[in-house]
Amino acid sequence: MDISALFQCRSIAVIGASRDQKKVGHHILKSLQKNSDLELFPINPHASTLLGLRTFVSLKELPHPADIAIIAVPSTVVESIVDECIQTHVKAVIIITSGFAENGKNGKEVQDRITQKLSQANILLLGPNTMGYIAPFDNIYASFGADDVTPGPIAVISQSGAMLSALFQAYASAKTGVSFAVSLGNRAGIDELSLLEHAAKDHHTRVIVLYMESFRNIPVLLSLASRIVKSKPIFLLKGGTTECGISAAVSHTAALATPQALLRDAAQQAGIVMVETFEQLVRASIASAKSAFLPEHLMVVTNAGGPSVVLVDEAVQAEVPLVSLSSKTASTLTEQFPTLRLANPLDLLGDATPEMFDQALTILSHDLNIDALACIVTQQSITDMDGITKVLMKPRGKRLVIACLTGGDQLEPYREKLRNAGVVVTEYPNEVVETMKALVQAQRNMEKTLPYAVLSLSSSAQPTKTTHTYPETFSDLQTVLESYGLRFPKQVLISDEKDFSELETLSFPLVAKTTDLALKHKAKLGAVIADIHDLGYARVAYNHLKQWNAPVVFQETITNAHEALVGMIRDPQFGWYCAVGLGGSLSDTLADRRYFFLPAQKTVIAYTLSQTKLASLLTKEQTHALVETINTLQHCALETNKLTELEINPLFITENGAIVADMKRG
Amino acid sequence: MDISALFQCRSIAVIGASRDQKKVGHHILKSLQKNSDLELFPINPHASTLLGLRTFVSLKELPHPADIAIIAVPSTVVESIVDECIQTHVKAVIIITSGFAENGKNGKEVQDRITQKLSQANILLLGPNTMGYIAPFDNIYASFGADDVTPGPIAVISQSGAMLSALFQAYASAKTGVSFAVSLGNRAGIDELSLLEHAAKDHHTRVIVLYMESFRNIPVLLSLASRIVKSKPIFLLKGGTTECGISAAVSHTAALATPQALLRDAAQQAGIVMVETFEQLVRASIASAKSAFLPEHLMVVTNAGGPSVVLVDEAVQAEVPLVSLSSKTASTLTEQFPTLRLANPLDLLGDATPEMFDQALTILSHDLNIDALACIVTQQSITDMDGITKVLMKPRGKRLVIACLTGGDQLEPYREKLRNAGVVVTEYPNEVVETMKALVQAQRNMEKTLPYAVLSLSSSAQPTKTTHTYPETFSDLQTVLESYGLRFPKQVLISDEKDFSELETLSFPLVAKTTDLALKHKAKLGAVIADIHDLGYARVAYNHLKQWNAPVVFQETITNAHEALVGMIRDPQFGWYCAVGLGGSLSDTLADRRYFFLPAQKTVIAYTLSQTKLASLLTKEQTHALVETINTLQHCALETNKLTELEINPLFITENGAIVADMKRG
Repeated sequence: MDISALFQCRSIAVIGASRDQKKVGHHILKSLQKNSDLELFPINPHASTLLGLRTFVSLKELPHPADIAIIAVPSTVVESIVDECIQTHVKAVIIITSGFAENGKNGKEVQDRITQKLSQANILLLGPNTMGYIAPFDNIYASFGADDVTPGPIAVISQSGAMLSALFQAYASAKTGVSFAVSLGNRAGIDELSLLEHAAKDHHTRVIVLYMESFRNIPVLLSLASRIVKSKPIFLLKGGTTECGISAAVSHTAALATPQALLRDAAQQAGIVMVETFEQLVRASIASAKSAFLPEHLMVVTNAGGPSVVLVDEAVQAEVPLVSLSSKTASTLTEQFPTLRLANPLDLLGDATPEMFDQALTILSHDLNIDALACIVTQQSITDMDGITKVLMKPRGKRLVIACLTGGDQLEPYREKLRNAGVVVTEYPNEVVETMKALVQAQRNMEKTLPYAVLSLSSSAQPTKTTHTYPETFSDLQTVLESYGLRFPKQVLISDEKDFSELETLSFPLVAKTTDLALKHKAKLGAVIADIHDLGYARVAYNHLKQWNAPVVFQETITNAHEALVGMIRDPQFGWYCAVGLGGSLSDTLADRRYFFLPAQKTVIAYTLSQTKLASLLTKEQTHALVETINTLQHCALETNKLTELEINPLFITENGAIVADMKRG
Repeated sequence: MDISALFQCRSIAVIGASRDQKKVGHHILKSLQKNSDLELFPINPHASTLLGLRTFVSLKELPHPADIAIIAVPSTVVESIVDECIQTHVKAVIIITSGFAENGKNGKEVQDRITQKLSQANILLLGPNTMGYIAPFDNIYASFGADDVTPGPIAVISQSGAMLSALFQAYASAKTGVSFAVSLGNRAGIDELSLLEHAAKDHHTRVIVLYMESFRNIPVLLSLASRIVKSKPIFLLKGGTTECGISAAVSHTAALATPQALLRDAAQQAGIVMVETFEQLVRASIASAKSAFLPEHLMVVTNAGGPSVVLVDEAVQAEVPLVSLSSKTASTLTEQFPTLRLANPLDLLGDATPEMFDQALTILSHDLNIDALACIVTQQSITDMDGITKVLMKPRGKRLVIACLTGGDQLEPYREKLRNAGVVVTEYPNEVVETMKALVQAQRNMEKTLPYAVLSLSSSAQPTKTTHTYPETFSDLQTVLESYGLRFPKQVLISDEKDFSELETLSFPLVAKTTDLALKHKAKLGAVIADIHDLGYARVAYNHLKQWNAPVVFQETITNAHEALVGMIRDPQFGWYCAVGLGGSLSDTLADRRYFFLPAQKTVIAYTLSQTKLASLLTKEQTHALVETINTLQHCALETNKLTELEINPLFITENGAIVADMKRG
């Protein structure tokens, strides 16, 4: 969707403009007046002028069509105004008014009708139930309560208006600003996808912040993100954990796949940094905005023993790399501070002076291994806070400096001075770690993310090409898998006792199971019988297993193998994903699952596998063989007609590669 | 250790008192002068008066012995001053001076010598390298930089001086105070144990805060804590993750037992709330200090959609219970707010007025299910922050009110007003959740913790009684375990091929393994052979297994059983603990381990088991049987002479109870 009309407007009509200062229509008109180049048309049948502007009775009266119509009238009137918008050929409509889909069925019907009308007329729609948008570089504040947001590098796309207000205030305190910000509201028209595309192109935007409670199209989002994060970090806060349910499935693949787990792994694959809290969203975006480059290696300088010990614990936990001092830096520090213990954190001790901080920071600034400098300062009896604050305000090359002033309100004046000087400021050591954790992840994503193709832009659920017909039976599926080079144990399918002699071609002991391709928890139900040592027991097993009305497969026993689960499923919301982990009958209990999204390159498959416990059991050769097998299986899943699910469990990992011991499909 | 002399002093000598304002000896003397009832003896050979007080040349010159001697002279002189302290019979010595054990071997030797001398003379020692202590209710500030701490309900025991400064400042901002606070320094004498005992008895103390980097005696700490937390919450921040190493062991029991994992489960058992960050320590202690009772059920009221959605996600994750509105509360709210969606959080929407907040909070205050009220407020275009701040200042019965004002510095004046009025204030929703998480845990600990006996006060490593001699062989150990009623599979031990005929008493297939009681990773090494179907294969197995120079045990195969690991180990630092989880040869990979400390009551064993993945596989009867077996094994471990380790893996959990399939001991 091309949304440039939103950002390239010259004239705006405000329907519902009001002189009542309590009304939203008043605030928006006032905000828009910040830009004297905009041609503003207040629409209000009851006033002739408003805020010094000539008003109009309706859109039809305007001297020429407005580029944008902002609607802030009661919900009952909105549809007729929308009709006028269409008649007068505006390019974009912003519906501030609430009371639509969020209010239930009736509201949803009106909203759907409006959306369809505008879409047919090729008119952009933002909202309804939106706070509007702002574009500070263009001096456009088409919103209420946001006319003081300064231009800056952060683009914000949010499904919550309150989040926007809080973010703007936090950015103002931190002396950073916004490239553009959009409140999606009910997201009937303009969505996060078109805004992400805009952010990618917008040269003012260096950092992207997303607050989402649901997604328009997850596969497309991931694909888009995987390209954007190569140059601009995306920080996502997902609100609401019960929004997107996962579809029921015949296999175990989906059993543990919560939306949270899937989203975590999806974000990882697409290079999006999923933050855990709103606080982290604020801190990460501010610190990125203030960083010349995304930092990875942290050096800590302090006058506070305990707080810096705790910081190190947290950094290790969060996998934030603490830099090791180079021998050159170490020897320079020793010259300057002969009695200090050289380490990271560098503890200048409780009586550290501003001069000591300055000397230490200056020496450390020459160490190219250090990307970020954090200073943890507490005010002890003889601490010169004024002096130290001045030292912390000095730039240290292009390095990110984080000042952590720990200890109550009495340090707030120093924190404020530092913030006003553009320094990143925190109060507690964990806030330094949370900030760095997000930046380090963004940095790694920028380096390592592989741009991720989406299967189809219109729908994520379509296979790329179809080369096989849908496998109805176990034998069908075996044929398909074997055509990809996958191996099975030496096995015989028996549908009739007459065929028992065929079993003599196999080496005992055998394992027997039903070939029902949709039966869950086979082992638990007694649908798998192991340790069959002779034909007599085989017959007993057959007679038991035939109750499932499918042929019974007898397989030679495979020993000394690890059991893996590899499952692919086509989820209506997430698209095709693959689960990998420990397999076998305890698979669900062991809960060893990680996910990737199809189609994935082998490096992504290998990374996903490396995150499982299964990986720790495998040799290098076995790992390699398993990655190849998973890659083959993803092709098979995508290239088989109407397949929605394919699970191999157990997939035996032997010394000689992978062997398919059982399978399910949907 | 009776440390009452520290808190019941009338006279204090300050050795190293100085007129130089940069010297610690100056600051301490000045702090002590806050209390005009204290008799102060500055010791300084170079001045006749100091801060208006008569000085003395040495301790020997004093008109009568000082109760306490505070030493703040260079480290080289400290030992001779200590000798004088002993000669003049002071009751307690506080060594502020640093440069002892923390500086290496030489310093450690001097410190040890001083400690021993004072101990022999029955004189208390605090430090060295301590910031001293304060007891605000008694107006004693025997420290530097802490003479403005107000009396309050929080006792603080810390191994870091910088932590103390930061805590005092945070408490001052929050308008709460301290009952007593002690900087342990190098902890040569007075330790956290005697201070915890003091805190337990001290009627000013309602909340206990611990910052520890290492522990004097973990088993004693746990036992003590388990009694204290029934009336006073203990919040512990553990700094430094590499301090306490876990001893090497023959079994898998210790394989995954990191100090962190053990401490987490130990704290759980003892009822200590282990916080994750310094910030959480600050917030939890402040909120507890301000709570009339420890809250459990949270109600959220807000004008901010997104932030409260995020709060709910975090609360669910942190297991903070969000209260469900009672039908009475719901109907009263409906009367007042007919169009609002009734839920928790109660979203009063972006245009909420102070009156709406007041009405909602008043109604909710009558709901007895609500223990704590959190208000998430963002400043949107028409938000009356002044009015809402006033509403939030009103007390709501004895309920804890948490005001969360989200959005940058511009809200700081409102936050400050609220803090000054005694309200608990946060900036971000996650801070509300982190605070509540700690309080909810403290509340549950108060209810559920079972006071926990310590095996021996002098050493944690001694069994309570010895009834069995050390089991040298598999047979010995089997005899011991069977005497406790534990069961083994039907099995035969073979030490000589001549005895093979005994195998005919067993039903094939068999499992064979070496009875080496200390061999790790048996399955991986090939020291376990399964599926033995005839005497011929048994002979092959025997000839292979005899390489481990121990008898070979042949067992009947047990099918349809779950494999558990139950291991007990006597750790030099933690004392006896037990690991429970999924067993079998993959046990280490599955990493399903939880821990409890011996001796434990069955409810503790059952709780520990319930935290494992193993638990999800078991029926109610199997769970019951396993708890009984674990209980039996703990007795066995404690009652067997010289045993330091006992591991059953696998312990088969069958339909008919637990069966010991293999074991190790150390």
